[in-house]
Formats: sequence, structure tokens, C-alpha cells
Amino acid sequence: MKKGILIIGAGGVSRVATVKCAMNIDTFEKITLASRTLRKCEMIQKEIKEAQNVDIDVACVDADDVPALIKLIKKVNPKQVLNVALPYQDLTIMDACTACGVDYIDTANYEHPNEAKFEYKEQWAKDAQFKEANVNALLGSGFDPGVTGVFCAYAAKHYFDEIHTIDIMDCNDGDHGYAFATNFNPEINLREVSANGRYWQRNEKGEGEWIETKPLEVKMDWDYPQVGVKPSYLLYHEELESLSKNIKGIQRIRFFMTFGDSYIQHMNCLQNVGMLGIEPVMHQGQEIIPIEFLATLLPDPASLGPRTVGKTNIGCVFEGIKDGVKKKIYIYNVCDHQECYKETGGQAVSFTTGVPAMIGAKLLYNGTWSAKGVYNIEEFDPDPFMEEMMNQGLPWNIQEMD
Amino acid sequence: MKKGILIIGAGGVSRVATVKCAMNIDTFEKITLASRTLRKCEMIQKEIKEAQNVDIDVACVDADDVPALIKLIKKVNPKQVLNVALPYQDLTIMDACTACGVDYIDTANYEHPNEAKFEYKEQWAKDAQFKEANVNALLGSGFDPGVTGVFCAYAAKHYFDEIHTIDIMDCNDGDHGYAFATNFNPEINLREVSANGRYWQRNEKGEGEWIETKPLEVKMDWDYPQVGVKPSYLLYHEELESLSKNIKGIQRIRFFMTFGDSYIQHMNCLQNVGMLGIEPVMHQGQEIIPIEFLATLLPDPASLGPRTVGKTNIGCVFEGIKDGVKKKIYIYNVCDHQECYKETGGQAVSFTTGVPAMIGAKLLYNGTWSAKGVYNIEEFDPDPFMEEMMNQGLPWNIQEMD
Repeated sequence: MKKGILIIGAGGVSRVATVKCAMNIDTFEKITLASRTLRKCEMIQKEIKEAQNVDIDVACVDADDVPALIKLIKKVNPKQVLNVALPYQDLTIMDACTACGVDYIDTANYEHPNEAKFEYKEQWAKDAQFKEANVNALLGSGFDPGVTGVFCAYAAKHYFDEIHTIDIMDCNDGDHGYAFATNFNPEINLREVSANGRYWQRNEKGEGEWIETKPLEVKMDWDYPQVGVKPSYLLYHEELESLSKNIKGIQRIRFFMTFGDSYIQHMNCLQNVGMLGIEPVMHQGQEIIPIEFLATLLPDPASLGPRTVGKTNIGCVFEGIKDGVKKKIYIYNVCDHQECYKETGGQAVSFTTGVPAMIGAKLLYNGTWSAKGVYNIEEFDPDPFMEEMMNQGLPWNIQEMD
Repeated sequence: MKKGILIIGAGGVSRVATVKCAMNIDTFEKITLASRTLRKCEMIQKEIKEAQNVDIDVACVDADDVPALIKLIKKVNPKQVLNVALPYQDLTIMDACTACGVDYIDTANYEHPNEAKFEYKEQWAKDAQFKEANVNALLGSGFDPGVTGVFCAYAAKHYFDEIHTIDIMDCNDGDHGYAFATNFNPEINLREVSANGRYWQRNEKGEGEWIETKPLEVKMDWDYPQVGVKPSYLLYHEELESLSKNIKGIQRIRFFMTFGDSYIQHMNCLQNVGMLGIEPVMHQGQEIIPIEFLATLLPDPASLGPRTVGKTNIGCVFEGIKDGVKKKIYIYNVCDHQECYKETGGQAVSFTTGVPAMIGAKLLYNGTWSAKGVYNIEEFDPDPFMEEMMNQGLPWNIQEMD
């Protein structure tokens, strides 16, 4: 009997992942797409039927509700659950998976609903629970985290005896034609940029420590192949937490993201007038949260897909030693917004997350990857993932540098 | 029996005008200050008593309500009414003045409550009504309009046989220490700056015509004495309407105001995200007008007085002919924000409007100026006004230029 995959969530990333799973229906056998809003699932279902003539099932579920999730999983009876819902829902979906004895895959780590904080702690704490249920949890199978971790494992396996430093470089050179808009939830986007930065390095005693930086304090101009030189700013990003533990002998790891001058200018102005505030403000007798009102004013991120042109370039710069010689390489992928949109109905920001989600799910589904318990993506053999990327629309390159 | 002056409105300009009237109590004999909010009047009353030991009366009135205005004017029985309320209330106060047979003075022309439009048409139309009542209306006795019109009349009288061009230059080099704030009502301020510019010139046939420019399209760097070179932008301003009619032989008249790069950057960003919008936006089931919410977020303009340092420089550049020779002069006043604040409790933006309001009222009160009907300030003899400026804290200079 066919088991299949249950995909939870029906946003931009889910659209791409579901379309890609349908393109790999020989592996996944049966696809069920569930979200709080059935209409969104049905829209994706219809598009897949029209474009690929593949039938998928749809269902309605509240991913905050563990009993409801368990009921759905028992009914659908899949081999695995791919979680592309909100990061607030990681823990409830994980619990439902162990209760039902099915594998779990996600793309972003747990966020506390009422705090601007994300960390792996609660998810890693479920390792014993997954081992006991004899199922696997694959954490962070998007692009960053996700592909960036695979690049690290691949560099460590094939290119270095010791990796000393890793800089993860994330460039979105897309142009949506608006003076200002954000590529995903403006609240999360703007909070990420206006927060302090953080990176990890070993001190003189060899102990790992986190160094905090002011928002946008550390800037590096990086020459992204097929894009060009772009100012890139140090941010904290979740994969730093797992990679600093899992990549042996590493001395320093940082994360950089590009922001155009205009984006930063708008953000600073909005910050200056108080529009990024997350506390309610009394306005004509009503409580208004400024950043929520800003989100109302800005274009819906979902509307940017058809109008965004240009490329993304995301990769990792590694420095270290191979055969006693110093070495520096950049492993990266380039995506084109319009090509991604034509293939999947999502622009490159959704595409680069949704495709690796499908690949991680596929490698677990077909047994290429297997390890009972909770694991981050860099703990698996990178080679089959790198091979899938070449075939699934995320070709990568390696640039050897001086 | 003492007649006195009735001042309507109790904002920043009124505070300065009332303090200055009290300093000229020998002329004004008796001062009554009225506004919708009695508490504001009482605060100014108390400060004047403490600083100058001068007693003034206070009253409560709704300046939109003609019968209420008439009742108050009959009760107070003043010689004149100084209108420093909102520009929306010019017409009601004018009607009450003719009904009671008292003189009328204001500082800003009528604005339509529901349109971003201001013009003299409705006020000029009351000329016959004022002539019939045998009383005088002096329009625009602030700084700009006001002193700038007096400068024009003075230049025409003493310095030129023909004035060809006038550029009114308005520089506020004050620093309030905030990243972004507006010196008066943010809504009016931001609408003024983000509106199209307009200036007046004669075409080849000698006909006057209005030329429209895009917002901030025309920029001039002007070297303001005691301030320095500042980028100044062409705006439409109300005195252009009357001066283009009243200054004989003029070929072109324009108005420029300084805005710092940071001010403009903030304004553009706010415009780009829709925060300057005046139409309601649906937000979480409530209608919110973006620019009103912005006003809630920004510092209260009234709070800027104590913290603003620096100077203002406002004046007129005249080019023309005297005795057959080309000539260019700049007539201007410089005010220091902190000195204005120490003297009157208002910073220079309120001071430069409130002092000329008192001077115009004084010249009508003591009969130096007299002309029954509705007149703009440049239609009177400028000499006594220029003399008062020297004595009342608005000293002026003339810079002869090449």
C-alpha cells in the first residue's frame, strides 16, 4: 500500500515544495497537502493537476492543535510529514509525528510566539522522544538553513582537512519594482534586519563564544558570481547554532545578507519615526501596533512573485587547510526569479527553500538518509543531496579562490 | 473707555503674539485671549502675569461658530480682533468682525477644511462687506506671508524703479535633536512639502501665468547670512498670489524653503510606504488615516521649543533696475531659536509669525495704517512696520549683491 507524504502549510514555500514533490511522484507515491485554509490547498491542487496531471489530496488542519494533527496523520497514514507551516508550530507537529510513528522534516527552527527569539533547544530536546518512537526528525531542510549545511558537510568531506572559517553569503538581487517592499512577512523581515547581529568564534583558549554586533555594524562587499559586488551585512541566522557544533575544528562562522542602500534607508527612516515598534500605541482611542500597520500598508509579499526579476546567489565561503596548504573556496547556487516563478509559481526566495525541503524529504523517503532521532541536515552524507540539487533545479558551482 | 484687542487662538503663534501685545500694553490698552480650550489661555495669562506683571482677560469660544463669536466680541467690545486660530476659521471670524464693526487681522489665508487648497478668493470677496461696515481687514500679517510682503513694498519704495524678480527665501536651520520631527502640525507640514510646486511669471506676451513644478523639483543653493549655504526648494506659498498682483511691473516671483537631506529622505520613505496618505486604510477592521497615525507617532511640535537650537533666516532677493542700473539686494531677518524661546516661550518658527501679527495689529490700532476694506499687508506703507521690527525683536538687514 502507498504511504505518501503529508505536507502541512500552504504558503509560498509549500507551493514550491508541493509542486516539486508532484514532479517526484514516483518517489513520494501519494501527496496530501493540509493547512488551516483549505482554499489555499485547493488552489495548489488545481495548479498541479493542470500543469502536471498529478492528483494530490487536500485537508484542513490547525497546526497548533496536537490532537487534530494526530487525527489527520492517522487518517492520511503517510510515511512522513513535511512541515512548511509557521515556525511557531514546529513543536506541535513534531509531537504529533512521534505519536503516530512518522518521520518529520522542517525548514526553519522553532520560534517563540511571543518573543523575537529562535533556537534549536526545544527541538533538540525531543531527540530521545524520536529515538523511542524509532522515527527520524530532519531539521532545517531549506536553503539557509539547509543547503548551506549541506555545502559545509560537502566541503568538509571533499575539500578540506580542516575548515577554519565559514561565511554564509545570502544575496537576493531581485527587483520587484516597488520603492519598498519585503520578500516575506514584513514584521519578521524588518525585525531580523533591525536586530543586533551575532557570530560565533573560538577564543584564545579554544572555547566557542558568541560575539554580538550592532544592527548592520559589520559590512562586507562580496563579489557574487552572476550578480556582482553587493554590500552584505552580518546578521544572526539560525544555522550558526548547529553548524558551530557540527563542523569539526571550525574557528569562526558568520552569516551575511545583502540589503540595498534604499532598503536600509527606508528601514532606518521607519525605525526613526517609530513605525517598527512592536508595542501598541494609543491612536484616537484605539491601540495600534506600528509594525502591524506598516505590514498593512506594504505590498503583500505574495504579490511580488510575478513582478520580481533578477537573481539570487546563496553560498558558503570556506577557508582552511587541505594537504597542508591553505585553501579558500566558495560553493554557491544561483537562481533566477522569473524562471522559478514560471516553473513553480513562486519566486526565488520561496523556490530556494521549497526545493531543498522536497529533496530532504525524498532522501528520507527512499531510505538514502536514515538515522532515528533528531538531526540537523549537516549531520547526513551530503553527496546524494548535492546530486539531487543538480537534477531538481538548484545547480551549484564551486569557485576556487586565492 | 479702553477698547483693547481680542486675540483668538491659543497655539504657539498666539503665545508669542499675546506676550508681545502685553509688552506693548500702552498701545493695546486691554488684551483678551480666547480659544476653544480655556486652559491654554489661562496658561499664557499666568505666564504673562509672572513675567511682565500685566493682566490679560481670557475667554472660551468656538471660532467656527459665528453667533458665538459675535456674542463674545460684543461682550469684550474690542477695537480689533487678531485671528491666530486655524486657517479654516478665517471666514467665520471675518463675518463676526463686520457684524460687530471691529477691525480684523490674520496671519494665514483661508484653507478649505476638506481640500489641500488655500487661496485669497473668499477673503478678497469680503472687501465690500468690510467697506460697508467701515472697518479694516489686514490679511497675512505673519512672516511669510507678512514681513516678506513688507520687504517687497519697502524694496519697491526705496531701492528700485522696477522690480523684475523676487525670490522669497525661508531657511530654518534649527536642530531639535530628533532624527525626524516637524515644526508644526505634521499633516500640514508634510503635505506642503510633498505637493507640487508653483511659481508665477509673465510670458512673452506679458501675461502672468503659473508654472507648476514637481515636488522638490527646483532646488537652489542659497548662502543665508549667519547660517551658510543651504539647499532650498521651490514650493507654492500663499503670498505669491497677492504679491504677483500688488508689486508693480514684476516679471517673476518664487518661493523657496530649506529642507535638510535627512528631512527629505524621511519624507520620501514615508511617502513610498504610504504613510503620508490622507485616505483611510482598513487595518484589522478599523479605518486608519496613515498621516494621522504618523502624527501620533512623531514628537508633539509644541515639545520642540525648549530643545531647538540654531537660527532662522527669512528674506527676499530682489533683482531690478534703479536709476537705469541693474541691482540685486537681499533683505532678511535672522532669529535665534533659543533667544526666541527665552523671551516668549515659543521657538523661532512661532516667534517670526507672532511678532509681525502684533506689529500689524499695533499699526492699525494706533491709526498709523488705515484703509477700510480688505487689504494685504504689502498694500500699506512699509516704513512704520520696518521701524517696529527693529524695536520688537525682528531686526532686519539689507545685503547689496552683485
